[in-house]
Amino acid sequence: MAKKVLIVYAHQSSGSFNAAAKNAAVEVLTAQGCTVDVSDLYAMGFKATATAEDIKGEVKNAENFCYLEESKLAWEQGKLSADIMEEQSKLTEADLIIFQFPMYWFSVPAILKGWIDRVLTNGFAFSQEKRYSQGIFKDKKAMLSFTTGSLESMFSPTGINGDMNVTLWPLQNGILHYCGFQVLAPQVFWAPSSAVAEDCKSMLESWRTRLQGLLEEKPLSFISLDCFDDKAFQLKPEVQEKHASKEFGLTVGIHLNKPLPPHSQMKAGC
Amino acid sequence: MAKKVLIVYAHQSSGSFNAAAKNAAVEVLTAQGCTVDVSDLYAMGFKATATAEDIKGEVKNAENFCYLEESKLAWEQGKLSADIMEEQSKLTEADLIIFQFPMYWFSVPAILKGWIDRVLTNGFAFSQEKRYSQGIFKDKKAMLSFTTGSLESMFSPTGINGDMNVTLWPLQNGILHYCGFQVLAPQVFWAPSSAVAEDCKSMLESWRTRLQGLLEEKPLSFISLDCFDDKAFQLKPEVQEKHASKEFGLTVGIHLNKPLPPHSQMKAGC
Repeated sequence: MAKKVLIVYAHQSSGSFNAAAKNAAVEVLTAQGCTVDVSDLYAMGFKATATAEDIKGEVKNAENFCYLEESKLAWEQGKLSADIMEEQSKLTEADLIIFQFPMYWFSVPAILKGWIDRVLTNGFAFSQEKRYSQGIFKDKKAMLSFTTGSLESMFSPTGINGDMNVTLWPLQNGILHYCGFQVLAPQVFWAPSSAVAEDCKSMLESWRTRLQGLLEEKPLSFISLDCFDDKAFQLKPEVQEKHASKEFGLTVGIHLNKPLPPHSQMKAGC
Repeated sequence: MAKKVLIVYAHQSSGSFNAAAKNAAVEVLTAQGCTVDVSDLYAMGFKATATAEDIKGEVKNAENFCYLEESKLAWEQGKLSADIMEEQSKLTEADLIIFQFPMYWFSVPAILKGWIDRVLTNGFAFSQEKRYSQGIFKDKKAMLSFTTGSLESMFSPTGINGDMNVTLWPLQNGILHYCGFQVLAPQVFWAPSSAVAEDCKSMLESWRTRLQGLLEEKPLSFISLDCFDDKAFQLKPEVQEKHASKEFGLTVGIHLNKPLPPHSQMKAGC
């Protein structure tokens, strides 16, 4: 069956490398028979801030407004603002979500963080029971595709910015995997702004090649929810014991005070 | 001399725990003779998204707009928008910056990410030469003070969310230390929304106690810029050699494929 893809795209300029990467994805995936939808956040003037205006009508507790609770209630009652509901509907339809952005300050730009804060509503995108490997979107795939300002060497475990696997952990584990998404390896475009035109062209070519097989790729490895107890959410003693003699920790975050598994946030099968 | 403190505060409600934490900081620091300024981002309707409107007049390259470059140029020419210049002026004045916020999706809320993206302009807050331990704000201190939704155990190296030290690395190293700030240990308020009133009160009391000596605290440890070469920005061979026999990596990100130094993003002297 033809797959549906949503590209959440955050760059101000249609002349940018990020625009070219987004356009390449639209072209290659469409040519494969996919239906591709693009949320062009700057062009849409997407509202980034999570406020009471995201909720139609009266909020439950105006004195002590809690966005997490109020937005959950509004989602249950169909009272979220139209722009949020529109994005949620695109997300529900999609089999694969690609986030295309320039890395700003070791993370996503604020406008994209706003999409994450406002669209991934409590109840719609996760619940206490349905998260991580049991997450609501466990039948969907998601991936980060981004440009950096820094060279690749600067994001190694001996580079000045530190290991890129660490920087990616909160984004890939804390947002994507948290909602259950199968997380595909990130597409990192290293410092295109410092590269010559030919190298930029070749980065885009290798992205096009990857896009051909993207939907068949294996996702990154995370830990199954049933490896944790359901009270303190700690790794079960028997799982810890099983890994006691292993050289590396289980993931970047759940590292058991061992060396981090190399490339685990960068490549499938690590 | 009396110190100046800037609190960059991001919560929608004056009845929130975050508001109480912010108010406690204003009270205790003012009582000590500090001048305290608060940027209340939601109340200010602070613009979160980085756009060409942040630059007064014509931009240099409208066809291929690059925020990093255009905002640098605008800063040099005094052409940044008034709201950004106002925040930069507060920052220039301050000896200590406290970021007070609820953690959203393993990071800061979008409105605060917007403050970071827009106010920490290239040239004003960092340059190729002036960053990390040689950063522009090396005579200033900064810290994160935030609430979590999750319990502390969930953010341990065996907890479901993974080690909090990993989640804090991109924020504390990639933003604060990158600009040169001496980073004080974070103030983490674990899950006040799940706590009974008495426990919330006691969390605020311990914050008040900490605030008394906050300005004299030692900062977290990072690696001096001169430990890296100035071409590929790799840890120098002699530094690597010196640490070859050590049990732990140098920092969370520059871990040398060793176990992460425990608590290094959470406590000074680790």
